[in-house]
Amino acid sequence: MPEINRRWLLAARPVGMVKDSDFKRVDEPVPEPGAGEFLVRQTHLSFDPTQRGWISVDTYLPAVKLGDVVRAGGVGQVVKSNHPNFKVGQLVQGGFGWQDYMVTAGQTEFMPVQPLFPGVRPEQALSVFGITGLTAWFGLTDIGKPKAGETVVVSGAAGATGSVVVQIAKALGCTVVGIAGGAEKCAWVKDVAGADACVDYKAVDVLTTLKRHTPKGIDVVFENVGGRILEASMLNLAQRARIVLCGAISGYNAETGIPDGIRTYMMLTQMRARMEGFIVLDYAPRYGEGVQALARLMAEGKLKTAEDVQEGFDNIPATLRRLFEGKNLGKQLLKIADPPLPVV
Amino acid sequence: MPEINRRWLLAARPVGMVKDSDFKRVDEPVPEPGAGEFLVRQTHLSFDPTQRGWISVDTYLPAVKLGDVVRAGGVGQVVKSNHPNFKVGQLVQGGFGWQDYMVTAGQTEFMPVQPLFPGVRPEQALSVFGITGLTAWFGLTDIGKPKAGETVVVSGAAGATGSVVVQIAKALGCTVVGIAGGAEKCAWVKDVAGADACVDYKAVDVLTTLKRHTPKGIDVVFENVGGRILEASMLNLAQRARIVLCGAISGYNAETGIPDGIRTYMMLTQMRARMEGFIVLDYAPRYGEGVQALARLMAEGKLKTAEDVQEGFDNIPATLRRLFEGKNLGKQLLKIADPPLPVV
Repeated sequence: MPEINRRWLLAARPVGMVKDSDFKRVDEPVPEPGAGEFLVRQTHLSFDPTQRGWISVDTYLPAVKLGDVVRAGGVGQVVKSNHPNFKVGQLVQGGFGWQDYMVTAGQTEFMPVQPLFPGVRPEQALSVFGITGLTAWFGLTDIGKPKAGETVVVSGAAGATGSVVVQIAKALGCTVVGIAGGAEKCAWVKDVAGADACVDYKAVDVLTTLKRHTPKGIDVVFENVGGRILEASMLNLAQRARIVLCGAISGYNAETGIPDGIRTYMMLTQMRARMEGFIVLDYAPRYGEGVQALARLMAEGKLKTAEDVQEGFDNIPATLRRLFEGKNLGKQLLKIADPPLPVV
Repeated sequence: MPEINRRWLLAARPVGMVKDSDFKRVDEPVPEPGAGEFLVRQTHLSFDPTQRGWISVDTYLPAVKLGDVVRAGGVGQVVKSNHPNFKVGQLVQGGFGWQDYMVTAGQTEFMPVQPLFPGVRPEQALSVFGITGLTAWFGLTDIGKPKAGETVVVSGAAGATGSVVVQIAKALGCTVVGIAGGAEKCAWVKDVAGADACVDYKAVDVLTTLKRHTPKGIDVVFENVGGRILEASMLNLAQRARIVLCGAISGYNAETGIPDGIRTYMMLTQMRARMEGFIVLDYAPRYGEGVQALARLMAEGKLKTAEDVQEGFDNIPATLRRLFEGKNLGKQLLKIADPPLPVV
């Protein structure tokens, strides 16, 4: 166990693509838990596109303050505990931030600390059984409400959330078309995730290719990318379509801070369609239901996951950048340690 | 009764603002009704922003063909009839187009021919008790679903539809803020229609002024304008807001044919909000319910209407342009004749 707590603090509000210099690496003493608190030694960090917003502006959560540790989800092990419900050796997940150690009383900034379900690997806890999988489940089923036989288009289909959405939609009996960047990702979306087709936006014209794959129009769009990709889907909507607005990663690193505008919005009127956003944190009271549904799909062999696990504490900023450079296939994670104690 | 049927045909697909030369005025013989048909002599024409789409591209209706009479709603009198349900002298409304006379068997291109309700003036039949009022009623109540105490923002608040929406929302117990162009229109929206406030987009910064008038955020946006006006509302949404996407008149005459994009769309995610379009023609089976609701509001003194009635057949193209120049307060109409026969 290191004697120091390595931390990445927010040093500057990023302009355009995030840079190493937007963050500052510091070493601090390992904190001591007080009464009713426990100390977590983090092993795996989660990387999520929404973090780009957190470090820039107030969104659905207040912006991370300059000089504060960067907000992030992670998995770790309880290494000291003065809390009756958290035992030394237990694996837990929570919003532990870009640091080795965190003292908490059980409620981190954006989520409660939760023990990992038995048999669930840390990588799975942060992907399919974490916020990522729950985002896919509730966004698709509660906002998109696809019916069997409908056509679902998923952008960012090889990403952490999109890859799960593709498979849920297939399990629900839909025709599923993914959009992803590159032959390797598209092959995974079709051959592993089971999409009926995948549009490689780096290789073909998205608008016309999408139209060819969705001859009856698109009933549900699960949108992770935004910008021109969203416009292409909007120009191929079926009547009464639902666009689930999960993310818009194409615009998060705009140099101007302003994403490309959506010029096709009146298609919503022409097609009597709706575009709706959601924040998965609102579904916290229903997380159990979501995890059960995802576990059932996995047990039935209908849900395969992909994880891109980087290593090394110093690689944290570069790993965040991988999301926006389109390098990750599946969930982007980074391992910073093995559990230092036997796991209970 | 003139011996000729004056007609305005579509001569060119307009580029940018509609011009007189996009249309061609011709004189033709008055048509004769065949078996089961009747002849309507039109007295009043309706002008609607959606016509700008109809003459340009396929939308929810196929584009008007070059050389065809321009599609439009209107009121007229039955002057000859071989149809058992339509009597000579009766006032009727339907999709009669930019012409004096039309022969029909009772179903015009986008709506059935309907007798005017007893006591309803032609101007009212084409505004509050026509497509315009029904658009306001169903769009607000069925898509926006405002609850008493919520904040409703209406753009194009002095326009035909917006002016009715303002008053329905007030009658439902909402706080209502209009957006309109010019002091005269804003005075009407507040003093006659009864809005709590009106933002004059020609005089003030819409974003900050709107924010001042909607301190708890906007729960329902009834959008007629689009573009930068819609963006201002989106930046002031309350959580779970609903944007009723009725129209986007600001973009209909874009020189490029492409409206300004909406750059604020991710506010839908941040605020868990939805933006939804609708086409009033879908509500045809419920028109009676809508007309009754509007008639009740009018009888209770809660619904005042404004009409801008131009005159002269040759002024038809210029009258369409008034909509896009922001000249009309309330419903834009044009009178081309008095009923030539006694009204039955």
